[in-house]
Amino acid sequence: MKLKEVGEKVLVETARKTFRKGKSIRIGIGDDAAAVDLPGKKCLVVTTDMLVASTHFPAGMKPEQIGIKSVVVNLSDLASMGAEPLGLAFSVALPRELEFGYVKRIMRGMESAAKEYGTYVVGGDLDEAEEITIAGSAFGLADKNKLLRRSGVRKGDILAVTGELGAASAGLKIIMEKIPAKGYGELVKAQLEPKARVMEGMALARSGHVKAAIDVSDGLAANLWHLSRESGVKIIIDREKIPVHRLVKKFSAQYGYDIDEFALYSGEDFELIFATQPRFWESVKSALKRTGTKATPIGMAVEGSGVFIKIGEKIDELEDRGYEHFK
Amino acid sequence: MKLKEVGEKVLVETARKTFRKGKSIRIGIGDDAAAVDLPGKKCLVVTTDMLVASTHFPAGMKPEQIGIKSVVVNLSDLASMGAEPLGLAFSVALPRELEFGYVKRIMRGMESAAKEYGTYVVGGDLDEAEEITIAGSAFGLADKNKLLRRSGVRKGDILAVTGELGAASAGLKIIMEKIPAKGYGELVKAQLEPKARVMEGMALARSGHVKAAIDVSDGLAANLWHLSRESGVKIIIDREKIPVHRLVKKFSAQYGYDIDEFALYSGEDFELIFATQPRFWESVKSALKRTGTKATPIGMAVEGSGVFIKIGEKIDELEDRGYEHFK
Repeated sequence: MKLKEVGEKVLVETARKTFRKGKSIRIGIGDDAAAVDLPGKKCLVVTTDMLVASTHFPAGMKPEQIGIKSVVVNLSDLASMGAEPLGLAFSVALPRELEFGYVKRIMRGMESAAKEYGTYVVGGDLDEAEEITIAGSAFGLADKNKLLRRSGVRKGDILAVTGELGAASAGLKIIMEKIPAKGYGELVKAQLEPKARVMEGMALARSGHVKAAIDVSDGLAANLWHLSRESGVKIIIDREKIPVHRLVKKFSAQYGYDIDEFALYSGEDFELIFATQPRFWESVKSALKRTGTKATPIGMAVEGSGVFIKIGEKIDELEDRGYEHFK
Repeated sequence: MKLKEVGEKVLVETARKTFRKGKSIRIGIGDDAAAVDLPGKKCLVVTTDMLVASTHFPAGMKPEQIGIKSVVVNLSDLASMGAEPLGLAFSVALPRELEFGYVKRIMRGMESAAKEYGTYVVGGDLDEAEEITIAGSAFGLADKNKLLRRSGVRKGDILAVTGELGAASAGLKIIMEKIPAKGYGELVKAQLEPKARVMEGMALARSGHVKAAIDVSDGLAANLWHLSRESGVKIIIDREKIPVHRLVKKFSAQYGYDIDEFALYSGEDFELIFATQPRFWESVKSALKRTGTKATPIGMAVEGSGVFIKIGEKIDELEDRGYEHFK
């Protein structure tokens, strides 16, 4: 059987079964990042994320933006665990015919993004390849008992999301379909220069009232399904409450696109979905507010399984659809 | 200017200048791995290494061997810092048309190698690409004041190397030139299933008498040049003392190859070159012996710069030549 018939999820499941999980491994394969116990109260949180030019870099993406995105996708995985970044390392494969100046600009993008999040590029590896391939790894520290994880949602929890959704994928649509970007520059920028919610993840973890989070990398729907499966709960969200970026609404109306494709079924917004008990909501909201970021409650976790969406009076199962490799 | 005109070394130098080095960064870009201070006595040692099929996987390499090599190249970088491995993470890009069974076998190879060195594969990322690309990262712990580094050689130090040299590249020659492997299976195996000197690196660091090491990944000559440049010393080695693998001698004689091409100018033996003061030599040798590995003194560090080789009564500069990407 070929990978395109098997799909990414089955591969992840196979990895989970193949690799032993040692006693020191607090969180292994299957979350946004892994967590390994260190002596003392802290654990090391590590993640790796690879960007391949043909899949991840839309036409017209500047080399600085390639550098920024390489940093952000990795830091976002630390953010969704609530970890404080210590540093980043990059394995970079480049074509021999590539211009040196272009590579310098990628590095400058990496450096500026690392600086923005108060962290450092500490090492790397260089190789040759047909297309630009950047594998980053990020590592950070978190309190052992304050990790945010996919499996941390409990029935009765409120599900909430930071910021707004849909901008990055609407931006990608503009780029791919060569739609005039006038008035929609913010959407294009959300795609090309995404932000990671690093301070927000740390604030959620430190509040002590949040045990579950995931970043919106595959899309709201797919990421909610991850939370539901890993936590063993049923999640019901309210379509009306989903904070869709205002320009995504405008853009969808103007060009006849379905808003849900951007806000629910496409990824790369890198917002955080998290869960907390209703009685802690105000306190968590204030903790987040100090980072300058708003959060919106979008639903609840209850006993059962699956992810459902309330539209008006109707409640339907939400499609488990988003970005999946190989399929 | 294109990368093929610039070469890997200039790129590394550019990276060094581009990326800030924070106060917590004990060792940044330019060593085998980076070291970041943790609270307390330990520092985190991290490295990343990418293997691209067309460059790194010779024809006939089994998927299990691809998995093994991916683990070993990364652990070898931890070994050369004297760090104890905590875990590994892999970003893997695969073609959609690849067989699922093939990928399972790569994973099994990774798992068996991780187990051999007492460590774990804790996470990863999956992507699509035209050719198999595996970017690993390994992380471990070391005492802050017992790190082995490229810049740690002092004048008066003995330079020594673990094990024997030349086997991996002679094995590669056999594979590439389709030379009958009969009698030379050990060389082929050294190429396809290399070993990392993890316990040896830890023993050297813990002895307290070794401050400098590097792994033989680019070749003895190129790696000695790295040590010389980073430590600001002149290194003189004795050609007679270089421990060449006996089958490399036999193979070179039989097929008319220059032994030095394998033992001095080709890499991937993953032995450790290290430095210690003469008065500590016996103690370091015994510390190593407990891991079951021999070390051979091959030269000395003196005041000055450059790497030189003594052949009979003549001392010549050793060519700074080995594997360099893009050139």
